[in-house]
Amino acid sequence: MVRVGIQDTVAAELLRHFPSEAEIVRLPREPESACEVDFWIPPFNRAAAELVFAHLRGVKVIQSMMAGVDWLLPWVPAGITICDGRGIHDIPTSEWVIAAILASLKQFPRFRDQQLQHIWDGQQAISGGFRAHSGKQPAQLLVLGEELHGKTVLVVGHGAIGAAIELRLAGFGVHILRVARNARDGVSSIAELPALLPQADIVILIVPLTAETHGMFTAEKIARMRPGALLVNAARGPVVATDALVAALQEGRIHAAVDVTDPEPLPPEHPLWSAPNCLITPHVAASTSGFLERAYALASAQLHRYVQGEPLENIVTTAGY
Amino acid sequence: MVRVGIQDTVAAELLRHFPSEAEIVRLPREPESACEVDFWIPPFNRAAAELVFAHLRGVKVIQSMMAGVDWLLPWVPAGITICDGRGIHDIPTSEWVIAAILASLKQFPRFRDQQLQHIWDGQQAISGGFRAHSGKQPAQLLVLGEELHGKTVLVVGHGAIGAAIELRLAGFGVHILRVARNARDGVSSIAELPALLPQADIVILIVPLTAETHGMFTAEKIARMRPGALLVNAARGPVVATDALVAALQEGRIHAAVDVTDPEPLPPEHPLWSAPNCLITPHVAASTSGFLERAYALASAQLHRYVQGEPLENIVTTAGY
Repeated sequence: MVRVGIQDTVAAELLRHFPSEAEIVRLPREPESACEVDFWIPPFNRAAAELVFAHLRGVKVIQSMMAGVDWLLPWVPAGITICDGRGIHDIPTSEWVIAAILASLKQFPRFRDQQLQHIWDGQQAISGGFRAHSGKQPAQLLVLGEELHGKTVLVVGHGAIGAAIELRLAGFGVHILRVARNARDGVSSIAELPALLPQADIVILIVPLTAETHGMFTAEKIARMRPGALLVNAARGPVVATDALVAALQEGRIHAAVDVTDPEPLPPEHPLWSAPNCLITPHVAASTSGFLERAYALASAQLHRYVQGEPLENIVTTAGY
Repeated sequence: MVRVGIQDTVAAELLRHFPSEAEIVRLPREPESACEVDFWIPPFNRAAAELVFAHLRGVKVIQSMMAGVDWLLPWVPAGITICDGRGIHDIPTSEWVIAAILASLKQFPRFRDQQLQHIWDGQQAISGGFRAHSGKQPAQLLVLGEELHGKTVLVVGHGAIGAAIELRLAGFGVHILRVARNARDGVSSIAELPALLPQADIVILIVPLTAETHGMFTAEKIARMRPGALLVNAARGPVVATDALVAALQEGRIHAAVDVTDPEPLPPEHPLWSAPNCLITPHVAASTSGFLERAYALASAQLHRYVQGEPLENIVTTAGY
């Protein structure tokens, strides 16, 4: 038997495909004593995971369900195999990215604010039906949104989620630029990022958080973005220099849409909350029921491999990370 | 020469491709006397258009820039050729539809409300990192959004905009059902709508407003939608029985995302404003600068045809409508 450590709140239906050799060890929020487990599936909450791990003994494999394992590495000792959740985030995170881009371009946050106040500020509400021509009002039509069509989109980080984003952009008539750690066919090296930034209307960050990517999106990089361009952070908060992002937003230089911030949770007094042209969601891109099904299907497949003595997938190596 | 009537607020740059035979007649918001024009491009505001039209003499062609001309028909006398804006809305309106679907599924309005209050209600904010299992919380992960992937989408009205919506859905892994006035390959007849409604997670209305479609989406049709399904109205407000929509939303039976309402503007006291699970934008789907370029490119192409004596495109016939 393989002892599989799982939170006591996980619904049994999600474990229905686990191998019969798996003995489920239900772990409470704060274990009262040490627990022996061979294969551990940490909870999604990072602080809770660290707390539980302190009570575990004999762990040989950790199967994380996060795409990035940056948060595990500091407190997991060497010798334990760590597997990440590569693949299971592709669908929900790529969907969140397209949602965030379109909602920003179409000014949905602004219309939500107007809805809360019961204000209809559309074409028909314009006094007399006309607007004076100035700035972005090249006719009697007030321009209240932007099109994704024709835009240049720069995808920074081109793993599985980057590819899933691109698949979903295919029907929108955009031009795509790609950057990854290593250049390959159709993908530029990260060294070319500064040169590519001024060409993009939309910049999507979808890199893992590593020593290399920590603080990678500096004030200098933000300054190289086109005026009015949109920065989308679906990676990790610390990838972006938050102070520089806040400054650029407050100066009206760029727009942003972020599912991740630094710090997290974003404290109530943080200036990012009220920076203009910034859409914030509280790290929820993968909070879907489809994701949970996929996550436990991965865990199940890994357990079948483990009990059969087959090699595991998604093993995190220091080289690959 | 052909006298072309255009609002005085339209930027000259938009008219740069007009034929040299076009004599531009700039029309003020409220003309003081009668104006002779052969070819009229009405303003987008309906009330303003009707007001201007009362001062026009000799009009032979009206080139509307709206996809639907329902608003013109009541006050334009027979004998004047009406051309609609078919094609120019495909991009912005289909983008709005995808934006509205994703923003609804990902609960962006809810997160916007939380942002206004500086509240981070994501996974990390859950006390102790765990949630009790109940309803849509099948694990320690709180489900805060839905996936478009795997959903069944019913497109009601399958003209150019319907096809543009479908093109943009292609990368999202959805199953598409189609309904139009006349059945054709892959498209069911409108008579089958009641039978198809219970199969759809998302219902998109993109029909013109005609005597046939006025009030088409009745309380009975709403009742046939799946519990929790999303109704997207990118057509015209009166296509939907608004009272029935409000009732279904208030009972928590369905979700909705609408760019059009009945009436428009939606009055401040209207219950739709605060109905739950309803995203409202004030008829702005086509309010983009790309749309304006495309609209005046169409007008220019039509004028070239007109001065050459060639047949116009997009002519509205009673049969086709």
